[in-house]
Amino acid sequence: MDKPVLARLQKVMQLREEVETLASGGPFAPDADWLSSGTHLTLMVDVPGCAPESLALEDDGEAVTLSGERGAVPEDQESLHRERRTGRFSRRLSFPEPVVAQSGEASLVSGVLSVRFEKVNKTIEAE
Amino acid sequence: MDKPVLARLQKVMQLREEVETLASGGPFAPDADWLSSGTHLTLMVDVPGCAPESLALEDDGEAVTLSGERGAVPEDQESLHRERRTGRFSRRLSFPEPVVAQSGEASLVSGVLSVRFEKVNKTIEAE
Repeated sequence: MDKPVLARLQKVMQLREEVETLASGGPFAPDADWLSSGTHLTLMVDVPGCAPESLALEDDGEAVTLSGERGAVPEDQESLHRERRTGRFSRRLSFPEPVVAQSGEASLVSGVLSVRFEKVNKTIEAE
Repeated sequence: MDKPVLARLQKVMQLREEVETLASGGPFAPDADWLSSGTHLTLMVDVPGCAPESLALEDDGEAVTLSGERGAVPEDQESLHRERRTGRFSRRLSFPEPVVAQSGEASLVSGVLSVRFEKVNKTIEAE
């Protein structure tokens, strides 16, 4: 095959991928909550079916960026009905209050990622 | 307090609950996929953060009904930003193909529930 044909094929494959992404409603975009206690902020994110080793967190002082991936449908399975999105994702979530730099502690339980950050301005309730 | 006042209070409390449900975007409604192989249908449902003991499956021959619950925000936490829905849910999912009665086998991994049903009409690919 000569180069123009290859280039056109690649373009077609790329378009097909884009159309398939549109059809499945875009990439996986996990839901997130910010919770607050007197001393800590907690970020909770739904990441069902994401491999733990695919998840990465980056704290730049103003926000935390969570990225990860959810695997596609296995090749030996045909998809008859799809609502669950797959693929790579990345979300930047601004801290709603100042937190101590690099204080995040993460845990992953039942497909929910929790990251607990120490607040700069702590409030301790009187007993 | 006399009865009419109590009844009105109860009505107000009920309305308040309904408004709060609306504000949080309705109850938790998990995403589901139907996958197919030559011999089995598989239902996959995202149930991150749902306690396994809250999940129940009922197969009536035409559909499977999945119900469960996702716990609310803990009382010692204030919610600053919320996308993750909570509460009880129930979804009825019609079988896309006939399956063998009561053949479902469920597993729960990383917040994803998989239920594998045996097909009535199996197709086995030639090697």
